[in-house]
Amino acid sequence: MRTLLAIGIGAGDPEFVTIQAVNALNTVDVFFVFDKQGPGIDLSQARRAVCERYIRDPRYRVVELANPSRDRAATEYAGAVRDWRDKRAELLEQAIEAELPDGGRGGILVWGDPTLYDSTIRVFDTLVERGRLQLDYQVIPGISSISALAARHRIPLNQVAAPVHVTTGRRLAQGLPDNTDDVLVMLDRADADLSCTYLREGGWHIYWGAYLGTEHEALRAGPLAGVIDEINHARRELREQHGWLMDTYLLRREWPFGPRE
Amino acid sequence: MRTLLAIGIGAGDPEFVTIQAVNALNTVDVFFVFDKQGPGIDLSQARRAVCERYIRDPRYRVVELANPSRDRAATEYAGAVRDWRDKRAELLEQAIEAELPDGGRGGILVWGDPTLYDSTIRVFDTLVERGRLQLDYQVIPGISSISALAARHRIPLNQVAAPVHVTTGRRLAQGLPDNTDDVLVMLDRADADLSCTYLREGGWHIYWGAYLGTEHEALRAGPLAGVIDEINHARRELREQHGWLMDTYLLRREWPFGPRE
Repeated sequence: MRTLLAIGIGAGDPEFVTIQAVNALNTVDVFFVFDKQGPGIDLSQARRAVCERYIRDPRYRVVELANPSRDRAATEYAGAVRDWRDKRAELLEQAIEAELPDGGRGGILVWGDPTLYDSTIRVFDTLVERGRLQLDYQVIPGISSISALAARHRIPLNQVAAPVHVTTGRRLAQGLPDNTDDVLVMLDRADADLSCTYLREGGWHIYWGAYLGTEHEALRAGPLAGVIDEINHARRELREQHGWLMDTYLLRREWPFGPRE
Repeated sequence: MRTLLAIGIGAGDPEFVTIQAVNALNTVDVFFVFDKQGPGIDLSQARRAVCERYIRDPRYRVVELANPSRDRAATEYAGAVRDWRDKRAELLEQAIEAELPDGGRGGILVWGDPTLYDSTIRVFDTLVERGRLQLDYQVIPGISSISALAARHRIPLNQVAAPVHVTTGRRLAQGLPDNTDDVLVMLDRADADLSCTYLREGGWHIYWGAYLGTEHEALRAGPLAGVIDEINHARRELREQHGWLMDTYLLRREWPFGPRE
């Protein structure tokens, strides 16, 4: 039996790491890292920095895996994501068999929270279902980018007694969910304007954050109509400057456009 | 100028505390605690345990404030919550003036994440708006009960590329949001059956957790139709046994009832 750990290290700030994650890091024999191009370079460095900072006895090994390519032109987006996950699962299975001895503990460090828009849990599930290796796994939650966003803006994610809708840039581009005045948007496209650009009218405020928790952190907030052009401009500049961009935002409609019962 | 800190300590497990929270705890001169009846007793103990475990130099003081009563019979629920928050703000303002010297740092420990269904940020905002005291404040995010729920069940909060709706038991009782197959429910009533009980039909699964992260933690999962009676029974028993109940759950519709593009 081998044990796998999906360890959330929080969204950016090395101080977002929990005591549970620190303790888990210190039990890992082998860290498996899916190598990434572009955006991944800085993130890999951040993961290494977390290991160096919090692991007391550096007897661990790091095994790098080639990240399979994802079919970004696929018409079935979710299907393409599932294919990509299955390829990752196969690569991880081979690496575990070759590199992690029986009884060993393998770790994957997850930026943010492994329970939110991350494939690691599903990859582990896939390995267990395949049944080729005897595996158990644990999930260590992390500070998500949406918690980090709200904390940096010093706002609650929800209005009083009201719901919050968490969605993707891709979904938002298809239309607003009904009856929702607080929408958190993740995974918006880095190579185009924000998906919410079409929502200029209607009383929305935006609370936006890029590179949350890192030294590059950028925050903007204001009426959407007033700040969206500036944010789109900043995104283009930041992406050029850093070579990658990761951001998230909250759209909020307050009284008289939204909640106050 | 005084500085206030809303410090998220995570949902239950003292190991959910982040390094940022540990560092913040160690800078606080005075912790302000709203005294609670019933459910609050165990939670107050948990907060004290966090202080004792992580504060290296126990020179801090704890100031207890009477928790104002909330009008639970009010027809305007959100309005009653706002009134209650304003009363808390007033009490806190008096306590800060009396107990926290100029230049000092006051902390409020928040169960879970201060950015999600918690009033502390709005109370701080209210104090700044009132303008009677010169105040600045910071928000330290924490592991929310929804991250903890998903981690303990080892499930992602979202289906592949799909949205997640976060809402309250009260809202869910009024009806399901449209086009949503993943619904996280918080703050459901402790003194009645779960609000989702009426959703037996329709292919829902439930992932339920009570007292997450604590020694009393209880988890149940399965098709809603098959497990809801057992969960409602367990809630009655647990509430009787511990004198309080705090739980959260995810409702999920998978293929063929929900997502798979």
